[in-house]
Amino acid sequence: LCPPGVLPLCCRPPAWDRATRPPPSPLQPPGIPCRSFSNNKIQVELDGSSGVAMMKLKSPPVNSLSLELLTEFSISLEKLENDRSCRGVVITSAVPKIFSSGLDITEMCGKSTEHYGEFWRAVQELWLRLYSSSMVTVAAINGSSPAGGCLIALSCDYRIMAENPKFSIGLNEAQLGIVAPFWFKDTFVNVVGHRTAERSLQLGSLHPAPEAHKLGLVDELVPEEKLMEKAAAVMAQWLALPDHARQLTKTMMRKAVLDRLVAHREEDIKNFVTFISKESIQKSLRMYMEMLKKKKS
Amino acid sequence: LCPPGVLPLCCRPPAWDRATRPPPSPLQPPGIPCRSFSNNKIQVELDGSSGVAMMKLKSPPVNSLSLELLTEFSISLEKLENDRSCRGVVITSAVPKIFSSGLDITEMCGKSTEHYGEFWRAVQELWLRLYSSSMVTVAAINGSSPAGGCLIALSCDYRIMAENPKFSIGLNEAQLGIVAPFWFKDTFVNVVGHRTAERSLQLGSLHPAPEAHKLGLVDELVPEEKLMEKAAAVMAQWLALPDHARQLTKTMMRKAVLDRLVAHREEDIKNFVTFISKESIQKSLRMYMEMLKKKKS
Amino acid sequence: LCPPGVLPLCCRPPAWDRATRPPPSPLQPPGIPCRSFSNNKIQVELDGSSGVAMMKLKSPPVNSLSLELLTEFSISLEKLENDRSCRGVVITSAVPKIFSSGLDITEMCGKSTEHYGEFWRAVQELWLRLYSSSMVTVAAINGSSPAGGCLIALSCDYRIMAENPKFSIGLNEAQLGIVAPFWFKDTFVNVVGHRTAERSLQLGSLHPAPEAHKLGLVDELVPEEKLMEKAAAVMAQWLALPDHARQLTKTMMRKAVLDRLVAHREEDIKNFVTFISKESIQKSLRMYMEMLKKKKS
Repeated sequence: LCPPGVLPLCCRPPAWDRATRPPPSPLQPPGIPCRSFSNNKIQVELDGSSGVAMMKLKSPPVNSLSLELLTEFSISLEKLENDRSCRGVVITSAVPKIFSSGLDITEMCGKSTEHYGEFWRAVQELWLRLYSSSMVTVAAINGSSPAGGCLIALSCDYRIMAENPKFSIGLNEAQLGIVAPFWFKDTFVNVVGHRTAERSLQLGSLHPAPEAHKLGLVDELVPEEKLMEKAAAVMAQWLALPDHARQLTKTMMRKAVLDRLVAHREEDIKNFVTFISKESIQKSLRMYMEMLKKKKS
Repeated sequence: LCPPGVLPLCCRPPAWDRATRPPPSPLQPPGIPCRSFSNNKIQVELDGSSGVAMMKLKSPPVNSLSLELLTEFSISLEKLENDRSCRGVVITSAVPKIFSSGLDITEMCGKSTEHYGEFWRAVQELWLRLYSSSMVTVAAINGSSPAGGCLIALSCDYRIMAENPKFSIGLNEAQLGIVAPFWFKDTFVNVVGHRTAERSLQLGSLHPAPEAHKLGLVDELVPEEKLMEKAAAVMAQWLALPDHARQLTKTMMRKAVLDRLVAHREEDIKNFVTFISKESIQKSLRMYMEMLKKKKS
Repeated sequence: LCPPGVLPLCCRPPAWDRATRPPPSPLQPPGIPCRSFSNNKIQVELDGSSGVAMMKLKSPPVNSLSLELLTEFSISLEKLENDRSCRGVVITSAVPKIFSSGLDITEMCGKSTEHYGEFWRAVQELWLRLYSSSMVTVAAINGSSPAGGCLIALSCDYRIMAENPKFSIGLNEAQLGIVAPFWFKDTFVNVVGHRTAERSLQLGSLHPAPEAHKLGLVDELVPEEKLMEKAAAVMAQWLALPDHARQLTKTMMRKAVLDRLVAHREEDIKNFVTFISKESIQKSLRMYMEMLKKKKS
């Protein structure tokens, strides 16, 4: 299935071979089914008995996707991916009312072009890892989830959202005067179809949870207090399938879209850096940040 | 985003740069916010204060898309596109009960191959301009809209239809024994998805307004007397977005389908001319016209 | 429309030219409008007056798609395709409660690689013929229809299913530890869209009839005793269209997906043979067959 040349992620030594690997080594100390590791901004807890990891974004006040958080996210995913005992991951937020506010604007404003490039590569890296993950990925969306936050949810295998009309989700980049990159768009189209994506992206819509459900942007709504219970139940359903077949199927469904970024990755970084460096765009972003500050105070 | 080589429309000097252009020159006479121009078959009125143009098809009895009307339509769009003060256009009909009956069959029957070629190029030109327009385009569908009339509606950003079950809309070419070209199909699939398009195109279905709404062929139904009011409200919502970002997003969504015709334009003309010149097809069209005449009398 | 080189099916001497052929020869004996032929596992009855053939799978206990049945199916389709008086075919089952249980696992288990290759070519052949058929194809799904049975239904122009929640349908390959090939997936995506296909394929879901209808996997549900009546009515609606235009439209909608298999046919066979020959897969299939045997007894 791989195009010629070495591809970083979607064509890595197939993670799905883990399915036929032996179970976790008996040398592993028994009675300690739960391992956890924590970075500055991400908490991970892996339940060795179920094979399910809980990954919590914890970067108050709004889980902005800073370079640091993005890097920790990618590293955490990689660790889990390489852990034989981990088969699924639930992604959620440790911050009340917000899943993630999306890309950290301060990383895109008043910095060097080198910084912009490094930042964008980290955004790509996270998406490439998450969208191609061989693990079952479930988003437990316990708060609002605009822009990059929405992308994270869209990249999972299943999306459950708290049934709270105050929580909204969407790719609202156009509202900020910027444009969602093509691979955000491709991911969105794969979930909601072309027409819904076209309209929502052009209007930069943030959809309240009930509307998001109606559009197919999220798969299910549950009362907030039932979110984790539901995520566990969904995970169990997906893990009932043989890993190998499920993973090959996932690859088949997502490969075309993953390959498109892989093939144009450097070009995409260059485009982003050029675009974001424009004085008109910088001005828009400064104004937006001013507005946010005023709103806060 | 542009492929190599100069492309006519979808890659023109980016119209979205108008967004960062200065507002209309102060030399422009104040107090005259409304300009209008009129051709034989199209009336255009531009409200300089809102930036919204109203474009009305006025070619009784059924707004057939003749070579003349198509040409006027393309010229009018170009004028508005080049007018700094125009940001959106509402397309509707000045003829009661009919939005547009589609391509004028008399242009396709008993004429020279040169004429068929010229006619088809004009159909392509209108679609290329409308589907790639940098303006917000809203179809206010105040009557039936078969075939080419449906294509015009499908090419807009938003479709509002009068809530009248007697009005129907669809790509019914198959009913006439002809085939919708691939770019009609691509535009249709982008709006309603593959399955709905496949079934509707094979059956040549004309969907009554309520069904068209259910299928996603139109976005909204309103009582006929509220149509213009609703179109203005929708337009205001879309114009609230920064032009630049909205336009880049629109291009991203539509470019693949636009490029496909651009790349095969001459071939598509040749195919059309060959197909329409066949005696069997000419006979079908003559029979259809006879039927229409009898129906009228 | 044809790519260079001779293609087997979707680019055969266009079957749609039959539309302009003369009606059945008057030399044909009058008063015998009904012809039938029967193979071991398929019964075909053609009603010469309506131009509609009824094709019944009759391979108890579950209409497994064995090499023999697949071959008879392809030959029957070809016969009808070449019969001027046949314009449409209804596909259904002569076995109670089951439409078809899908590919015959005994053909994929414990056989030679040559056999696997021959078997897979027969599966491809059936799909290429059915999905590209110039006839109107209606699936009258009068029982459960997993895996390859579902593919047959998906390849028709219209799907009517008995309104019985005990009957289910879906591409459940993942449940068996195997993976639906890309052209099963492409056919599925064309019917239900990318997201529904992604979720359903990864979970290997078998959808009860009401759910299948909600997802768009089948077009209509009717009480079981009305199934044939409804199929006839739907067929009449589709046959009301001129064949030529309908067939060209169908080709336009399906060609991309057909061409993809045609271009990769030998590679696809090789992939299948390699995959199915793996000891781990053979073991899965043996276990599955054991389970089925136990269930039976």
